[in-house]
Amino acid sequence: MTEPFVTELEDALRAVVGATHVLVDGDLRAPYETDWTRRFTGRARCVVRPGDTGEVAAVVRACAAAGAPIVVQGGNTGLVGAGVPAGGEVLVSLARLDRVEPVDAVEAQVTVDAGVTLERLQGHARAAGLDFGVDLAARSAATVGGMVATNAGGIRVLRYGSMRAQVAGLEAVLADGTVLARLGGLAKDNTGYDLTQLLAGSEGTLAVVTRVRLRLVPLLPARAVALVAVAGTDGALDLLAAARELPALSAAEVFYPDGLDLVRSYARLPAPFGEPAGAYVVLECAARTDPTDGVLEILAGCDAVVDATVASDRAGLDRLWSYREAHTEAIGAAGVPTKLDVCVPLGELSAFVAELPGAVAAVAPAARAIVFGHLNEGNLHVNVLDAGERAEEVTDAVLRLVAAHRGSISSEHGVGRAKAPWLPLSRTPQEIEAMRRIKAALDPAGLLNPGVLLPA
Amino acid sequence: MTEPFVTELEDALRAVVGATHVLVDGDLRAPYETDWTRRFTGRARCVVRPGDTGEVAAVVRACAAAGAPIVVQGGNTGLVGAGVPAGGEVLVSLARLDRVEPVDAVEAQVTVDAGVTLERLQGHARAAGLDFGVDLAARSAATVGGMVATNAGGIRVLRYGSMRAQVAGLEAVLADGTVLARLGGLAKDNTGYDLTQLLAGSEGTLAVVTRVRLRLVPLLPARAVALVAVAGTDGALDLLAAARELPALSAAEVFYPDGLDLVRSYARLPAPFGEPAGAYVVLECAARTDPTDGVLEILAGCDAVVDATVASDRAGLDRLWSYREAHTEAIGAAGVPTKLDVCVPLGELSAFVAELPGAVAAVAPAARAIVFGHLNEGNLHVNVLDAGERAEEVTDAVLRLVAAHRGSISSEHGVGRAKAPWLPLSRTPQEIEAMRRIKAALDPAGLLNPGVLLPA
Ligand SMILES: Cc1cc2nc3c(=O)[nH]c(=O)nc-3n(C[C@H](O)[C@H](O)[C@H](O)COP(=O)(O)OP(=O)(O)OC[C@H]3O[C@@H](n4cnc5c(N)ncnc54)[C@H](O)[C@@H]3O)c2cc1C
Ligand SMILES: Cc1cc2nc3c(=O)[nH]c(=O)nc-3n(C[C@H](O)[C@H](O)[C@H](O)COP(=O)(O)OP(=O)(O)OC[C@H]3O[C@@H](n4cnc5c(N)ncnc54)[C@H](O)[C@@H]3O)c2cc1C
Repeated sequence: MTEPFVTELEDALRAVVGATHVLVDGDLRAPYETDWTRRFTGRARCVVRPGDTGEVAAVVRACAAAGAPIVVQGGNTGLVGAGVPAGGEVLVSLARLDRVEPVDAVEAQVTVDAGVTLERLQGHARAAGLDFGVDLAARSAATVGGMVATNAGGIRVLRYGSMRAQVAGLEAVLADGTVLARLGGLAKDNTGYDLTQLLAGSEGTLAVVTRVRLRLVPLLPARAVALVAVAGTDGALDLLAAARELPALSAAEVFYPDGLDLVRSYARLPAPFGEPAGAYVVLECAARTDPTDGVLEILAGCDAVVDATVASDRAGLDRLWSYREAHTEAIGAAGVPTKLDVCVPLGELSAFVAELPGAVAAVAPAARAIVFGHLNEGNLHVNVLDAGERAEEVTDAVLRLVAAHRGSISSEHGVGRAKAPWLPLSRTPQEIEAMRRIKAALDPAGLLNPGVLLPA
Repeated sequence: MTEPFVTELEDALRAVVGATHVLVDGDLRAPYETDWTRRFTGRARCVVRPGDTGEVAAVVRACAAAGAPIVVQGGNTGLVGAGVPAGGEVLVSLARLDRVEPVDAVEAQVTVDAGVTLERLQGHARAAGLDFGVDLAARSAATVGGMVATNAGGIRVLRYGSMRAQVAGLEAVLADGTVLARLGGLAKDNTGYDLTQLLAGSEGTLAVVTRVRLRLVPLLPARAVALVAVAGTDGALDLLAAARELPALSAAEVFYPDGLDLVRSYARLPAPFGEPAGAYVVLECAARTDPTDGVLEILAGCDAVVDATVASDRAGLDRLWSYREAHTEAIGAAGVPTKLDVCVPLGELSAFVAELPGAVAAVAPAARAIVFGHLNEGNLHVNVLDAGERAEEVTDAVLRLVAAHRGSISSEHGVGRAKAPWLPLSRTPQEIEAMRRIKAALDPAGLLNPGVLLPA
């Protein structure tokens, strides 16, 4: 690429978004160029901040005309290195697309711009007496567009599904600048291919999402949480099977004694039960009226329950949740973990958990794997401490074990750049070829997020 | 196409599936060549009945090698003419793919062949103490593959979503014979494009579905039904907004006085209330324990309720449901209706219902439109009686009115051949172009269901 050509594109971008929204200076670009984990960093050719859909389309058209690759960025909280440049791309930030439309209470839906943060969306929905079905800890920065692009999950997937289930429609810009608009939010619409569902989870490789029509859920004021001791993973699954009968069930999380020990010493928490147990489950119910009776009934009727404690007041809820929620911080305080986010079928969960320490020890004898996660989906956050120089080998060993148990190498974070080399462990060659054909159909020049998702 | 060439393909197909499963004789082909409505009929080159996925793939490969177009058929209950030939296609029937795997109670999932009927699936799930989330009247013949291909709906969409929400994975054969297999049924899996969701609702134009991994739902033994009189569509929507707070809500159906009159005289039913009302709503709740109290609470608190009657015993449930369920038969007994299956945003529903008679009268003065349907999704079955020779004009007028209210020309039945000319009323040129690109990427020669879904 010759210099005059470069200038031409930057000039074209300035003409579209205004000079102040094309960042070429290194200092101005820097916050966009490194990801949340600080593992992924790359130089952007420039950062462009369009202000609305028309500007996004014009930016994409200008890049397409110049043959300049693009990397798309929302809140930059993604954990797989997909929203930062590999080197030399035009970084298109959606942060300025931040309008929210009024909540439509009849349809229980709302249309918001891609750059709106989850926290802002939640506040907007709650002010209208409704709520949003997905919640996650990065809420203050993660954007709706990024959450759609990654099909984000979190603890309420059990109740409301992942991000894709919340998306009733969207507006997006294809690689040639074409605007696809489908914001009607019809609940049931069988008029051809569901392009919305195709774009959900496509990690910015097929289109730039500019606006989203989202389903909202009832605001549920009454909650009950049970922390339950069980003998092990099998017991946790028996409890889950029983708890699934509760219509108010909104979370089912699992953790283990080694994680509990780390959490207790980090957060100075008392032992939750007189006797240690093989595994622990947090169940939460949310409803219009106090759901405690249903929880007690399930616990009383389930043989897998060794011990249990239940709370429905604010302080008690927080106390019981803290045993699960302090895991990330407690593990971080104990070292720099190799973080994996995997999923296996529930029928494989016990075997996977049992085999994991051996698989890790085989490549990194000094390492230990702390496991916790979303029980209902078999989604485990595997955090390997003390892997030392063997982080890559540990990653490979854990992901191969996952594949051997018919699992997914990425349950909620996506493939990004971080896991693209391992994609063939989760998808067949035929599936990857079909994905490539779809990518080529919608982005023939491969301009959007090159190197993300599909292995090179 | 020359005769020797024809013989060659038929011979190749016989070699794959055995001579008894290649039907060339007119009498043997006939049951496959006309659809359920008897509106659509066409000659098949031959009917092929493969027995498993490998045979489906070999059949598709043979057709691809011969350049012979294919039409895919499941139970042949589709209502838009998409499963029968336009003329000269090889008709591939999935009926012999009829295996069910054991229910996985831990994951609440089951894998079944595409040709398994809904009724058989329901029985299989219920025998394992679970249930299937979609139900529809064609259950004895409609197949799982056809239901996935059409993204079928029904009365429980409100609770469990359409067919696409039940599909955790599938196996399918692409137009070149490639087998895509994704039957792991992982609850949360962010490893690339969701090909399963792309194929759901693609009406056999992208791939032949051979097996499906389905989510199951709890078997809920206790039910309560309310038949509620309201002043009109606005009142029905107010009631819906209140009823949505019931976690056990499983159906919300609407009908009107003219439909009620037809039903009462056809089924000899008494007036449900002392005074006639502007509109009627059927609410159903299903739960583990009797949900009647919740229903009563909602009715008592909702100003829109003019009168209501509630039942929770078998006979009472059937009696109240019959006012809604007898509509199809009662309308059919009153004449040959022009049937449309449309959907508008809830905010447009009142205006659409109010304007419909005028729009119909403008093109067919003697006609009358009977409307009923799934309130929660704004999905109305518009049945126009006495349209006489003006059926096409009525169809056009109603679908244009739907489009003017930002609705969908096909809510649950699909586009098929019947509605393909009107697709541009529901999808933008940009969307249709994107769909064509995806179709060309996966089926470059256009062999699968030509003429279905995408306008010629
Ligand atoms: C503390 C913390 C907790 C987290 N918890 C969870 C959790 O519980 N569950 C979970 O699933 N994830 C979680 N994440 C990961 C992250 O928050 C999600 O992946 C989130 O969806 C990313 O949104 P973002 O706006 O930050 O996207 P970015 O990081 O900016 O981008 C992520 C991907 O989406 C693409 N993208 C962004 N915006 C668009 C757009 N408008 N159009 C097209 N593509 C776009 C990018 O190119 C990239 O591929 C967590 C992250 C952190 C830091
Ligand atoms: C009495 C009656 C009531 C009905 N009620 C409802 C209702 O409440 N809700 C609703 O949504 N629909 C309803 N329908 C419509 C119909 O039952 C559904 O569309 C059903 O999903 C069709 O299934 P099938 O197996 O009969 O498919 P077919 O009619 O054989 O085919 C329908 C479409 O799917 C394709 N197809 C079939 N099998 C496959 C496969 N294995 N792979 C790829 N493509 C395939 C065909 O090519 C065609 O495009 C009703 C129909 C009748 C007759």
